[in-house]
Amino acid sequence: MEKNIKLLIEYDGTNYHGWQKQPNELTIQQTIEEAIYSITKEKVILSGSGRTDSRVHAYGQVANFHTNSNIPDGNFKYALNSILPKDISIKESSQVESEFHSRYDAIGKEYKYIIYNDKIRSSIIRNYSYHVAYDLDFMNMKKAINEFVGTHDFRAFMFSKSQVQNTIRTIKEATIEKNDKMIEVTLRGNGFLYNMVRIITGTLVDIGRGKIDFKDINYIIESKKRENAGHTAPPQGLYLNKVFY
Amino acid sequence: MEKNIKLLIEYDGTNYHGWQKQPNELTIQQTIEEAIYSITKEKVILSGSGRTDSRVHAYGQVANFHTNSNIPDGNFKYALNSILPKDISIKESSQVESEFHSRYDAIGKEYKYIIYNDKIRSSIIRNYSYHVAYDLDFMNMKKAINEFVGTHDFRAFMFSKSQVQNTIRTIKEATIEKNDKMIEVTLRGNGFLYNMVRIITGTLVDIGRGKIDFKDINYIIESKKRENAGHTAPPQGLYLNKVFY
Repeated sequence: MEKNIKLLIEYDGTNYHGWQKQPNELTIQQTIEEAIYSITKEKVILSGSGRTDSRVHAYGQVANFHTNSNIPDGNFKYALNSILPKDISIKESSQVESEFHSRYDAIGKEYKYIIYNDKIRSSIIRNYSYHVAYDLDFMNMKKAINEFVGTHDFRAFMFSKSQVQNTIRTIKEATIEKNDKMIEVTLRGNGFLYNMVRIITGTLVDIGRGKIDFKDINYIIESKKRENAGHTAPPQGLYLNKVFY
Repeated sequence: MEKNIKLLIEYDGTNYHGWQKQPNELTIQQTIEEAIYSITKEKVILSGSGRTDSRVHAYGQVANFHTNSNIPDGNFKYALNSILPKDISIKESSQVESEFHSRYDAIGKEYKYIIYNDKIRSSIIRNYSYHVAYDLDFMNMKKAINEFVGTHDFRAFMFSKSQVQNTIRTIKEATIEKNDKMIEVTLRGNGFLYNMVRIITGTLVDIGRGKIDFKDINYIIESKKRENAGHTAPPQGLYLNKVFY
């Protein structure tokens, strides 16, 4: 009997060309689909909650696939982890209703972004953070981040070539914390436009540097113009933390 | 005029065959010596405070070299970082007395060891921690660690093929902290035998699992027999944190 299996996935995106399957590129989706094939001999489609770009990480990506395999649902994680490369880990596997779809049923997501703020780069976390060498005024960044909370048209914070029409999103929680040289931005919302977390983070860095005034966030949002927002922070500091259903 | 330059070095040991220069192996010492050659055209010997093994990391390795270059001492870090691969970073560079020697003048070291304790492995920190899937009794580990503090003959906690004769060392501080799935062991002492931090950590893990009784630490130390101590924890959880002078 066909079962719908939901996976909770952690991955180190450093060596992948992102989540989504592409010809001639190593991707996370394809790597897991091949591991599922190894254990079930079924060619399944693994539907993720959304794409992540090259070098972006996930602590809690969610994906599901349909299978006729009689492997007990909780055992898929062990079977897959024994085959998958170590930079991909299945944290949980469980059977869900046959209608469940990781992408269409998601009602929210949480992303985390890690900035390493020091004159000199870090070697140990170089693939897991964004090195910013400039002095950053953390208090101004903290004042700015609250302005993002709420329902807004976030067009100014979307990759300019994205084709999405409805650019209204709700950010439910936005926090920024500093611990020595590490600055951690957390954003939780009902959905995010392409590059939105990275552009918000880049804007916060520009505010910290004094290139953008924290009082201008509302104006930038209302302008709906990408060029008014800050730079796009690089992918390796970004983590898909949680998907909500 | 010849200057003696001291470097404070962070590195990700994942892709190196340890600190010490060896024929036909990529090592950290050699990589930095070659970077120094690129900027000074001098073939120097870079003396480290001590070796680190393959896959072991450092936040604070110290090394020094003699040079006739007229690069201002504080600028060596920028010049070297621009040439070095990103998994090695020079955090500080400064001129020291001509007699200073990173190894002979060291009076103590601090190491950190990171354990990731969960049923399922982590992908993101796989190269930066030791994954222990067993349930660990943290309180017993915490009780055990205090027994290591003091001046002891640590022969039981030394790689059995090591040729060192004087195996008496003083551990000045030993702490263990738990934060969710992460357990961090910190050891500070006047010196450490080969594999000593990794064998102490492995013993703590064996205590956490219930394979060794925390009350037996003193007996194990006094026995001076390697086979009475626990297993050797793997290299990728170990960090040389600080060297004291």
